[in-house]
Amino acid sequence: MAMPPSTYPRRLLPLFLGLFQGALLLFFALFVIYDEPSAQAEDTNLVANQVYSTFPFFQDIQVMLVVGLGLLLTFLPRYGFSALTHNFLLLNFSTQWALVLQGLLHHFHHGQIHLDLHKLLLSEFAAVTVLISVGAILGRASPCQLLVVATCEIPLYLASEWVIVSCLGVLDVGGTITIHVFSCYFGLGVSKALFRATQQPLHPKETPTTSSDLMSLVGTLILWVFWPSFVAVLCQPGDAQHRAILNTLLAVSASAITTVVASSLLDRDGKLSPGHLQNGSLAGGVAIGVVADMAVPPAAALALGSLSAVLCVLGFRFLTPLLARKLTLHDQCGIHNLHGLPGILGAAASVVAILVAPRDTSGSHPSQLSPAGGNASEAAAGLAVAVGASLLAGLLTGSALRLPCLARPPERLCFDDSLYFKIQDQAESPGPDSSAEEGALALKEQI
Amino acid sequence: MAMPPSTYPRRLLPLFLGLFQGALLLFFALFVIYDEPSAQAEDTNLVANQVYSTFPFFQDIQVMLVVGLGLLLTFLPRYGFSALTHNFLLLNFSTQWALVLQGLLHHFHHGQIHLDLHKLLLSEFAAVTVLISVGAILGRASPCQLLVVATCEIPLYLASEWVIVSCLGVLDVGGTITIHVFSCYFGLGVSKALFRATQQPLHPKETPTTSSDLMSLVGTLILWVFWPSFVAVLCQPGDAQHRAILNTLLAVSASAITTVVASSLLDRDGKLSPGHLQNGSLAGGVAIGVVADMAVPPAAALALGSLSAVLCVLGFRFLTPLLARKLTLHDQCGIHNLHGLPGILGAAASVVAILVAPRDTSGSHPSQLSPAGGNASEAAAGLAVAVGASLLAGLLTGSALRLPCLARPPERLCFDDSLYFKIQDQAESPGPDSSAEEGALALKEQI
Amino acid sequence: MAMPPSTYPRRLLPLFLGLFQGALLLFFALFVIYDEPSAQAEDTNLVANQVYSTFPFFQDIQVMLVVGLGLLLTFLPRYGFSALTHNFLLLNFSTQWALVLQGLLHHFHHGQIHLDLHKLLLSEFAAVTVLISVGAILGRASPCQLLVVATCEIPLYLASEWVIVSCLGVLDVGGTITIHVFSCYFGLGVSKALFRATQQPLHPKETPTTSSDLMSLVGTLILWVFWPSFVAVLCQPGDAQHRAILNTLLAVSASAITTVVASSLLDRDGKLSPGHLQNGSLAGGVAIGVVADMAVPPAAALALGSLSAVLCVLGFRFLTPLLARKLTLHDQCGIHNLHGLPGILGAAASVVAILVAPRDTSGSHPSQLSPAGGNASEAAAGLAVAVGASLLAGLLTGSALRLPCLARPPERLCFDDSLYFKIQDQAESPGPDSSAEEGALALKEQI
Repeated sequence: MAMPPSTYPRRLLPLFLGLFQGALLLFFALFVIYDEPSAQAEDTNLVANQVYSTFPFFQDIQVMLVVGLGLLLTFLPRYGFSALTHNFLLLNFSTQWALVLQGLLHHFHHGQIHLDLHKLLLSEFAAVTVLISVGAILGRASPCQLLVVATCEIPLYLASEWVIVSCLGVLDVGGTITIHVFSCYFGLGVSKALFRATQQPLHPKETPTTSSDLMSLVGTLILWVFWPSFVAVLCQPGDAQHRAILNTLLAVSASAITTVVASSLLDRDGKLSPGHLQNGSLAGGVAIGVVADMAVPPAAALALGSLSAVLCVLGFRFLTPLLARKLTLHDQCGIHNLHGLPGILGAAASVVAILVAPRDTSGSHPSQLSPAGGNASEAAAGLAVAVGASLLAGLLTGSALRLPCLARPPERLCFDDSLYFKIQDQAESPGPDSSAEEGALALKEQI
Repeated sequence: MAMPPSTYPRRLLPLFLGLFQGALLLFFALFVIYDEPSAQAEDTNLVANQVYSTFPFFQDIQVMLVVGLGLLLTFLPRYGFSALTHNFLLLNFSTQWALVLQGLLHHFHHGQIHLDLHKLLLSEFAAVTVLISVGAILGRASPCQLLVVATCEIPLYLASEWVIVSCLGVLDVGGTITIHVFSCYFGLGVSKALFRATQQPLHPKETPTTSSDLMSLVGTLILWVFWPSFVAVLCQPGDAQHRAILNTLLAVSASAITTVVASSLLDRDGKLSPGHLQNGSLAGGVAIGVVADMAVPPAAALALGSLSAVLCVLGFRFLTPLLARKLTLHDQCGIHNLHGLPGILGAAASVVAILVAPRDTSGSHPSQLSPAGGNASEAAAGLAVAVGASLLAGLLTGSALRLPCLARPPERLCFDDSLYFKIQDQAESPGPDSSAEEGALALKEQI
Repeated sequence: MAMPPSTYPRRLLPLFLGLFQGALLLFFALFVIYDEPSAQAEDTNLVANQVYSTFPFFQDIQVMLVVGLGLLLTFLPRYGFSALTHNFLLLNFSTQWALVLQGLLHHFHHGQIHLDLHKLLLSEFAAVTVLISVGAILGRASPCQLLVVATCEIPLYLASEWVIVSCLGVLDVGGTITIHVFSCYFGLGVSKALFRATQQPLHPKETPTTSSDLMSLVGTLILWVFWPSFVAVLCQPGDAQHRAILNTLLAVSASAITTVVASSLLDRDGKLSPGHLQNGSLAGGVAIGVVADMAVPPAAALALGSLSAVLCVLGFRFLTPLLARKLTLHDQCGIHNLHGLPGILGAAASVVAILVAPRDTSGSHPSQLSPAGGNASEAAAGLAVAVGASLLAGLLTGSALRLPCLARPPERLCFDDSLYFKIQDQAESPGPDSSAEEGALALKEQI
């Protein structure tokens, strides 16, 4: 209906996903099993305790990714259904794809792959990178293009994470460097290669409405509440995890207040910008990840939260327009402001924290597990890897998205649910209400 | 205002509920107590650990039923307030009613009834059947009728569950047969007996809008996230519970992706149908319940999730219209597609799982508790009981709903909040905005 | 834009908050540290278990305050963004401010302040009082005024809580007296002193729409689901906590049903009022707090839940209009009906419970910890302190809000997000849709 049927590859999406599900099923049938049930009552208790100590965190993270992040992306008023659904689809696809790759990479030489909640959690962390990266091209990319991003990004993330954590020994429980910085520059690379030097003009459907901004803010609040679970889930139980929770709570609390300060100061009338609130409040959570379980004082968490919120708001106000003008770099959700700048700040903070940490208290950090841990130069190297590798990989991936078969939606159909969904009211409902009129306009545009 | 005061029994609802609350209070005052506080510190620890291991699951399920399911039902654009409130009211009424009946049935011969979190949870599981069943008649039944459904369904569910689990020894931790299949056919029976051979024409207020579809999708996502808690809460702690969580996660993840495949393939333009997404993504959770804690391989969970999503989508596309045309069977929410078909699939899968299970590993299933467990023919008998008994009981209940005193809303006032709620803007707000106009039309209709 | 720039102090908010963040940072840097990491494995286990037993409750409460309460306040159709953001801002500010004051008050003489999750939780409980109080003046007060309320209320709450709990020995795990009653009368005092004898006429933007009422109901449901966590989090682990959970569940369940009964009976046509549902369903949770962990029978929890819902609905129907007419007392959210009346009822119930409790079973209550506990006259004295002190303190605080520098918004700009936020569509979107028209009207009004 929307496009000439000959040009829109409407069978590509189900074909790709269907084949993937079939392959996944085959892979699982051949190689993946559960642990044998424990014979001893003691082992059963151990498993039960592991479930009780991990599962509530896991559920919190699921709420963040499925509901919180999904709602945050609904700020585009006519693209809410797409934002929510594509986010959900990408989460599932990327997690499954990461399960396969992690199975192949890490466990294949042990024969059968034993699935457990911890492995699923690691795969979900990998999937988070995709959900962040595609924020740069939200609304202007087709689902097929998004799946190609996921297909390319997951293996590259796993490789980069292996280099940063296993080779360089950087400790990053909250994924500041490995997830946030990596996915941000990957996404920016994709956007740059996809849109090249074309300036993206302001699309009429791109401006949020009060009600879409409100939904998006609810998403932010859900993410804000559960962020401590995200940072702390992989920590050592006990003091380190307790500290990670408290540091994250302090950081996001400072971010919330500082965002109001910064956003208000930047406006002539002292009014707050919804976009600043939706993103700045979370900046502290991004920055704190890499130092959350270290023996940093609580004041450092507050400072990091405040500073990252300032960076985020300044980024929205000055850097994003600048990058768009000078580099024709398009960043729809402002991922550079929420994930890039605070991530780099957090990485810098971890370098400082390692340098100033007294030798004796560093024993509280699980650095004994990896002798290379606690070395400031390696944290800096990790950051360089995350930025450089992701940018390069993103540029390559973005070039692949320009393949004609992948069907980028034409400009006039961007930011519109009706291209992907059988949404009823926009085309069918009669009567003089506004959405019907817009629907009629949209129809005319399409003809 | 809406109907001639002489015909609309506007005092029946508070009378019925008020009497019920009074009777409940009397019953509790006479028979229900808490456990004596533990004397030993060891016992106190035991109680504390039981709370910590059950309560997070319990809260997840509360979120599912109150918020998730409530929002899922708000897809009717002018009936959101009713859907949310009636769901909430029915949950509370049914849980209390199940507490009373379970108290009478199982514990009365022990004298006092000791209330605990586990008994409350079982009552809430009973209430779920009501919440599912009434989906078949959503929007066309008055609150009084819904309460009559609950009043009849709870005892019949308890009887059917007792036959299936205690007599036949079927193990069904996730309630696939006992809850989903039972409630589906009960609801269809109610609908059939209530509407008889009258074709239900498409009501102008029945078509979802983008924003009501979006709210409904948020409800789906909440249900999707917490479904593992629903399936795993009653499992044996340890391996069985761990496996139930993982199997459910795999099943709903496969459902999410397969729904996109199936819905896209069924549309000429490859567009996705919101209704398919809202329901198909959850189908795997329904199907996996009965085998979730069995020693099935992970691939089976994926297969079951995919297959149930396909069935659900096909059901919406072909079976529901067919049943409406041939049997004049009205199923507003498509409960047959989400609960009936996947439930039967899950039951069939459990028969297969029992048949192919090697004898030695079946020890991991808590079948030693009931010697009859693990017998394939008994699972099939359980399914037959669930389908047959519920259909018959539903037909009888539906006939009772036709009693004139129960006041089914007239067709033109269906799917409209303003019949039950003092909603302000539809009647009072001036100005040319669309909802006011519709409000005026509704008013005219009512006169 | 909205007001003459010379009169609106648009730099006051960021100045105040910025200075506060700076001072907080300094305070934390000087005085606040984390516990030393545990040396023994046993201690590590202890800390881990404390985290696992507290953190899920803590997260539930965060969801309540940030998402649930925030959404509940969005019933004003053009003020949703402000309600959500101001609630979020006040929660963060008040928690941080309470952390500082509690640090100074209770721990300063021990030297360094050791931060942990429990202290953070107590600060958050203090912040709840602010979130409740400002409900009385929602929509008619500027953010600066709200921050002044928080600044004054937190120390007064801490003092009042110290008198009631530590001096009088009243046990109030759910904060019925210390939080709900205190904050209600504080808020009413603020409202009275702020608005004096000026009757507040019905503002055209004050009437909820269906969709704002729906969002608000979702907030209620979230609060309803997690209320047991709020009441039980500070209980003794084991039986007392288990009982507190069950009592709260019973109370809010009875409230839900009784609200429907009462609201329906009060309406000529038997229709339910959204405001009654949004508040009455929660009344039982307010009332049960002070007796939740006592050895009261389950029937008492049901009775308390029903009775408090009746009081709440009657309050909305009769008392609020009466107070507005006779005392020109303005209570925007009806906090007197949700927090005042049920709180007083709960306090009265605790007096009765103490009087009728057999001496031997009172051992189940942790009253041995404070010998004064369990004394009925002291509970009554606690209630008197909470009402009297808060009313007086609120009146003084409200007078402070009249300082010209604090910039109360003029009547015609009340209840409007556009005064505080750069909301796009109301001023910019073209076309004949209703919100644009209202935006144009709003603009005209402002000129």
